Amino acid sequence: MSVPRFRPSLLTDQYELTMVQAALAGGAAQRRCVFEVFARRLPDGRRYGVVAGTGRLLEQLSEFRFGDEELADLERRGVVDAPTLRWLADYRFTGDITGYGEGECYLPGSPVMTVEGTFAEAVLLETFVLSVLNHDSAIAAAASRMTTAANGRPCLEMGLRRTHEEAGVAAARAAYIAGFAGSSVLGAGARYGIPTIGTAAHAFTLLHDSELEAFRAQVASLGVGTTLLVDTYDVTAGVEHAIEAAGPELGAVRLDSGDLLEQAQAVRIQLDKLNATGTRIVVTSDLDEYAIAALAAAPVDSYGVGTQLVTGSGAPTAGMVYKLVAREGADGTMIPVAKKSVAKASVGGRKWALRRRDPQGVADQELLGLGGRPTGSRPDEYRSLQRTLVSGGEVVDTSTVADARALHELSRAELPVTARKLSRGEAAIPTVMF
Amino acid sequence: MSVPRFRPSLLTDQYELTMVQAALAGGAAQRRCVFEVFARRLPDGRRYGVVAGTGRLLEQLSEFRFGDEELADLERRGVVDAPTLRWLADYRFTGDITGYGEGECYLPGSPVMTVEGTFAEAVLLETFVLSVLNHDSAIAAAASRMTTAANGRPCLEMGLRRTHEEAGVAAARAAYIAGFAGSSVLGAGARYGIPTIGTAAHAFTLLHDSELEAFRAQVASLGVGTTLLVDTYDVTAGVEHAIEAAGPELGAVRLDSGDLLEQAQAVRIQLDKLNATGTRIVVTSDLDEYAIAALAAAPVDSYGVGTQLVTGSGAPTAGMVYKLVAREGADGTMIPVAKKSVAKASVGGRKWALRRRDPQGVADQELLGLGGRPTGSRPDEYRSLQRTLVSGGEVVDTSTVADARALHELSRAELPVTARKLSRGEAAIPTVMF
Repeated sequence: MSVPRFRPSLLTDQYELTMVQAALAGGAAQRRCVFEVFARRLPDGRRYGVVAGTGRLLEQLSEFRFGDEELADLERRGVVDAPTLRWLADYRFTGDITGYGEGECYLPGSPVMTVEGTFAEAVLLETFVLSVLNHDSAIAAAASRMTTAANGRPCLEMGLRRTHEEAGVAAARAAYIAGFAGSSVLGAGARYGIPTIGTAAHAFTLLHDSELEAFRAQVASLGVGTTLLVDTYDVTAGVEHAIEAAGPELGAVRLDSGDLLEQAQAVRIQLDKLNATGTRIVVTSDLDEYAIAALAAAPVDSYGVGTQLVTGSGAPTAGMVYKLVAREGADGTMIPVAKKSVAKASVGGRKWALRRRDPQGVADQELLGLGGRPTGSRPDEYRSLQRTLVSGGEVVDTSTVADARALHELSRAELPVTARKLSRGEAAIPTVMF
Repeated sequence: MSVPRFRPSLLTDQYELTMVQAALAGGAAQRRCVFEVFARRLPDGRRYGVVAGTGRLLEQLSEFRFGDEELADLERRGVVDAPTLRWLADYRFTGDITGYGEGECYLPGSPVMTVEGTFAEAVLLETFVLSVLNHDSAIAAAASRMTTAANGRPCLEMGLRRTHEEAGVAAARAAYIAGFAGSSVLGAGARYGIPTIGTAAHAFTLLHDSELEAFRAQVASLGVGTTLLVDTYDVTAGVEHAIEAAGPELGAVRLDSGDLLEQAQAVRIQLDKLNATGTRIVVTSDLDEYAIAALAAAPVDSYGVGTQLVTGSGAPTAGMVYKLVAREGADGTMIPVAKKSVAKASVGGRKWALRRRDPQGVADQELLGLGGRPTGSRPDEYRSLQRTLVSGGEVVDTSTVADARALHELSRAELPVTARKLSRGEAAIPTVMF
């Protein structure tokens, strides 16, 4: 786990640093600022988004510094001037960050994160914050739809090979938060304690002189509880060989091609006839939430999902932005600000966020506001969505991946049933300004 | 550049290791094997793919080892047994890798990489090889369409915030290979020498008491050659303020919202009237290859591309697979092998690859074969596509990012004109088995 890489401070856009330079020179760098992270809209037809990446962001925040190597590179390439290099050398974020808990569902406009500090210290974090949240939230949103579609059957993440090697670890983490049962990615197990799974690929069968020989070698080494991949040649013969090699105590068989509905039914009947009634069926071929839903009636025990999970099932980025919503004026008071450009206008001012629930506990409104908050007519009418993540530069939120997973389950369960529809439609609940 | 991360050996799927365990125990681990990396098909409607990631793969190959930390984690979590842990402790890849040069265009079935070694040593690389190639090639393919659409005008990569933070660096590199002129990503400059660009965001304007004040601060610090973002409030007033702050020597103005075609025309006229005839216009709002092409008639000087670049413009992964195509038999000879599953069948045996060119030098066939090669009737009829990348475990290919960029330009220029069409269609040239 010991390969050097860039500090997160270089995983950022150049303009964050040139803005710091110009603001330092012009005198505005120390103005107090509030930046909000939000998505103007959900990906086309999605009912809700899922906040993910918060934990990854917080664990890397203390590394967002400029060391000798980073400074030498910036100097060599003339990215910023000498006063800025000196300022960067001392940089650490000393401000405050609040945000939705990781795993929380969000809607258009939800202030999923609020970063407050001087302009210079807060603007520097923009690109890094967005990268982490946009990637991880996109994966978690897709994963949440898949675990909804699976309706309690385990979903297993196997998409590393279809995305950037580090993104794959983050994707496994985001999927787990959204209810996946495990992942193929070793790094996700090592780093986050996510259960890892995996036994063999077609290459293992092809390596041997016969399928039966391959299965015998696998069972001898990995035990009868292993999963045998039965579709390298002929599925019916494969299942026969599998039970011949492992006996009826075989853990599972895996199907990775063909008509999964039809095959799963035939394989279940075949396994039962062979007395392998406890042998599970895992399917893994090009699944997405729709394919998972279509297999609801099939005797499938778990779903392995790859490409469509790590690419966000059609929505590979969450599209969140990091916008200045308030800044200190010449007189020291905070002034709400907002861009006025066509189609990209946003609401100025620092926002609070509450989720309103009806008497049955079902969410019916994402309520945002700038000033005083409603008190509510019932004690559980409003759920506060924002929590302190960083205070005075110190990370104070200690939520784990397990906490995020639990929060997601709670948050999703609270949404109206329309949220669980896979079809395209409106956001599950409206976002309302108080 | 000094944050620890996992070695690439943990950025891999668990089943690679369990296969090694079973093969070591069963005795097949040392069988000589040939794995090929190829894409069964191009993303829907694309005319060609672009090989990218090769250099990133080779620079990390020597780090694909299992150190104490990795082994301790695998032991603690019971991923593999003790004999396998001992074998992994000594592991380094000692085989051979050949492949298409980075930047080369590829077609369905092109053997873009061939990995030869013992089963155990070669299978271990599968997931990592695919992650790097699938991600980077997807980005390069999208980027290549964008630079084609831009028809000589510079394209600038700015998508880091819309993808995983490390993937963004790789995306900047892939985009540069496919002809982009630069990137916003500091890490891409530091690591690969890619020109980095960027000046200011809307937040910088909003930070100040007026747009004019913001522009003056930016010009004072970054010089009149800077790019001023003119659409925070009103574009016409913004352009006026820009020239007021910088004079007619202003480097560029940037438009990030609205109807870019209409705005660019109005801004060009306004700039020319203000004698800022050399001031360039950069556009950056939600561009993809189609939007770039639609702006061909607009007075635009460069295109900044974000989301659609880093998400592969609809095809976020290249879909390459890593398949065993030949392995040593019990008698020591190599046997071609192939999976027979429905819709995923592949051709066994190690393949050579040549690109056939007609007398005008235009490619007309991707010719693959297993045995003898055609000699050709002209000296330049066939271009060999494969080169040695790794020999006996040592990296021998020393191609740079600049080399890959040059190869891509050559390779794309050689394809028939249909390759440069943005509309959906067939692969630019057919893949033919000799």
